[in-house]
Order: sequence, then C-alpha cells, then structure tokens
Amino acid sequence: MVKLVLAYDGTDFSGWQRQDGERSVQGVVEEALARMHGADCPVVGSGRTDAGVHARGQVASFACPIPGMPIPRYRQALNSLLPPDVRVMGASQAPEGFHARFDARFRTYRYFIVPGDRALPSQRRYAWCLRHWPNPSRLDAMASCLRGELDCSSFSCPRDQSRSRHRFLKRASFFSQQGQLVFEICANAFLWRMVRSLVGSLIDYERRGLPEDYLSRVILERDRSLAGPTAPAQGLFLWSVDYD
Amino acid sequence: MVKLVLAYDGTDFSGWQRQDGERSVQGVVEEALARMHGADCPVVGSGRTDAGVHARGQVASFACPIPGMPIPRYRQALNSLLPPDVRVMGASQAPEGFHARFDARFRTYRYFIVPGDRALPSQRRYAWCLRHWPNPSRLDAMASCLRGELDCSSFSCPRDQSRSRHRFLKRASFFSQQGQLVFEICANAFLWRMVRSLVGSLIDYERRGLPEDYLSRVILERDRSLAGPTAPAQGLFLWSVDYD
Repeated sequence: MVKLVLAYDGTDFSGWQRQDGERSVQGVVEEALARMHGADCPVVGSGRTDAGVHARGQVASFACPIPGMPIPRYRQALNSLLPPDVRVMGASQAPEGFHARFDARFRTYRYFIVPGDRALPSQRRYAWCLRHWPNPSRLDAMASCLRGELDCSSFSCPRDQSRSRHRFLKRASFFSQQGQLVFEICANAFLWRMVRSLVGSLIDYERRGLPEDYLSRVILERDRSLAGPTAPAQGLFLWSVDYD
Repeated sequence: MVKLVLAYDGTDFSGWQRQDGERSVQGVVEEALARMHGADCPVVGSGRTDAGVHARGQVASFACPIPGMPIPRYRQALNSLLPPDVRVMGASQAPEGFHARFDARFRTYRYFIVPGDRALPSQRRYAWCLRHWPNPSRLDAMASCLRGELDCSSFSCPRDQSRSRHRFLKRASFFSQQGQLVFEICANAFLWRMVRSLVGSLIDYERRGLPEDYLSRVILERDRSLAGPTAPAQGLFLWSVDYD
C-alpha cells in the first residue's frame, strides 16, 4: 500500500469526497493516479473534509499496481499531474492492508482566526476574520474541558449519521501565533462539523461573557440548541493524522 | 493630508496604477474614497507596483476634504467599502503638503521563494516555487555587494524611462524563514522591475555555480545582457516605506 500526505487549498473544492459533477480533492487525486497507472485507482482518505476546508496533512492510501515502482517517486510524479491547489507532501510505503481511515489513531485540526480589520489580504483566504477580538486566555480556559471521552452531541449536526456521539479528545487549546489566534484540537475522530461548531460556540460564549465552565456544562446537557453558530469553513485545516 | 498604509494581494490587479478598463489598486482605493466623500479624491502612492506584485506596507496619501473628520476612522470606513484583496492597515494624519511618493526616503521589498515540490498550496500564490533549491549563504554572499550608490543599468528594463540609473542601496540580504527563502532589499528607490531582475539573476548565477563576486562584476559592466531571467511577480511584496 502507498501512503500519501496531501496539502490542499479547499477554497475551490466541493470537499474531499468524490461527488458527481463536483470538483473534489479525492476526484483530482484519483484522476492523476488513473493517468499514471492507465487504470482506475481508488483512494481512501483519513476522513472527509467539507467544502472550503483546507488540509496541511491529509493522509490517503491506495494499492500501487506497478511492481517495483519506487514509492517515494509518487510525490514528484503526482505533483506534475495535480492542479496547484493540491500538493503531495510525501509518499511512503505502508504495510499491506494499510487503510488511511480505519488505521488513523488521532486527527489534529487547526482553526485560524484573524482580527477582521487588521488581517492581511493573504490571510483572509485561510482564516476567520473577527471584528470583536476575543481574550485568548479566557478561550483557552473555556476549552480546557475538551479532554477525555466525551459525548459530543451538543456539537453534532442533525444530518450526522454517526452511531455513537462519543469521541476521545486528546487535547484542545487556543494559542497566539504571528498575530493570529489558533485553536488546535486532537481527537480519535470528530463528528461532522464538530470543530467548526466548537469554535463558533466558544467565540460566541466568550463574546457574551459566559463563565469559563460554560462549555463543560453545555457538553453535559447534550443539547444542540445550546451550541453557537458554526464557524466558517475557510479557517479550518486538517493539520495532521497519526498512525501507529 | 492623510497617510494610508495599504496591504494588497496583487494577483487580481493590473498593478497599483489606475488604467482605463483595468482593475488597479489605486482605482479601487479612489473609488472607495469617492463613495465616502461624494467627490473625486486623487490618491498618490509611494510607487507603482506591477501586475501580480503584492504589498504589505504600500503608503498612499490624499487630501481629506471633510473638516473635523477623525483621520484614524478612515481605516474602518475604507475597509468596509474596499474589496477583500485590499486592506487599509492604518490611517494617520500627515503634515500639510505630505506626498507619499516624493517624501519617501526608503522602500523595502521582500521576495519569497519556496521549494517547488514541497510548497504548500497556500504559499504558491505568494512565492516563487523553485525546483532547484539554492544555497542561501552563497546567495547572501553574492548579494552583499548591493550596498551604497550603484549604477543599476544591468538590472534595468529597456522600457524604463528613469533619467538616472543610479540608486542608493541601504541593504540587501537573503535569509531563511519557516521553510521559505526570503530576499530583502532596501533602497531610496528602484528601477522598473529591478528587484525581480536581481532575484532572477542571483538564482541563475547560483545555479550556474558562478563565483561569489559575479554580481559585483555584472554591476560594473552596466550591461543588461548579463542579467538573468526576471523572477515572477507573485513572489514580490512591497514590504514597507520609510519617511522622515
């Protein structure tokens, strides 16, 4: 099996997953592989990213049909065929039976926030521009409850078809970096739109001056109506995926 | 007079200067000011940037026709009228007769270079992607002659109409930053396309293994045919402009 690490600018994609008539990341990667191999080559991603969501370290896997092909060469070969908004950052040999989705142990997402009236034009495509600038340490204190096994129903979508709404959260924090505010969250898996729902809610709670333990109370309630608005897609990056 | 500090993404502009039928930065700023003032309001820039060249600290000046208007408010007011690829980063009162172009003492440009096959999609819009990765310290040594008053004819364009080709260079250097290679150059003024010509030449000399004093010899020759290819616009940022 081949393991690819992919970076993409999600702006002009309908999302990761191939869909008829839409420009998807999976679609353009499979097209490039089909051109290389002269045959269809289905690709599995570690998870789906929504329309407009970016990736710095999406992981994808596929079976290489060319005997003796040096796997690291896939990086350059695919990059010469892929459009500039998708890049293969690395290609490596993975054990037989490797599956980018089922074998992933942890996914890390980062969400970037910039001050609306001071954001550089080059940042706006990759961040949420906020007029009201939140207090980073209050946000970080609010987010500190995002640890351990939690029922995340309050931050799920009605359309989410997951059987269980429990997820194991390894860590979540806010930090400042070069004038930007960054939310980083790492978990075994996420519900659909959960990260954007968490970010939108935390920004909303902070602005409304709610207490630092508010988020932990909302989680216990398992009530979607207590969540704030969903943060926009363009601030979100699938940052990395960890395997054993 | 009002002094504005502007940042813009040059990708979708024909350049700074207003031109009939083209989308220019000067044009969209003047349009926004005309809407605010209800009358034409000509704007002067510190210098023209070419099509595709970005700015982080372009400076522009204009006469405020509204008596008693608090100048810093121009920032927010203009940002609500400007398209997202132009942002006013600051607005301040400048002395009577201030002129963004004639009063500028030094202009600083930065040129960003990324490794072609490892560049993130988000970097490609704002950098030159190079396949052959140069040696930063050799480049920096080559550029060390860019200091003092120099006849820059070797890096001028035939279409450049400047009377003198002498410019006073304050400093020029290459440094690495977050996986990118950055060329920074500061001078009282530049010839048309001079920075891009210098960057393209230095990259070319380094790749060809020419000696570290090659650039200084080319400068003495005053011969355009010794310059290398012009580096692409998308890596160049007008970084800052200094006034007394």
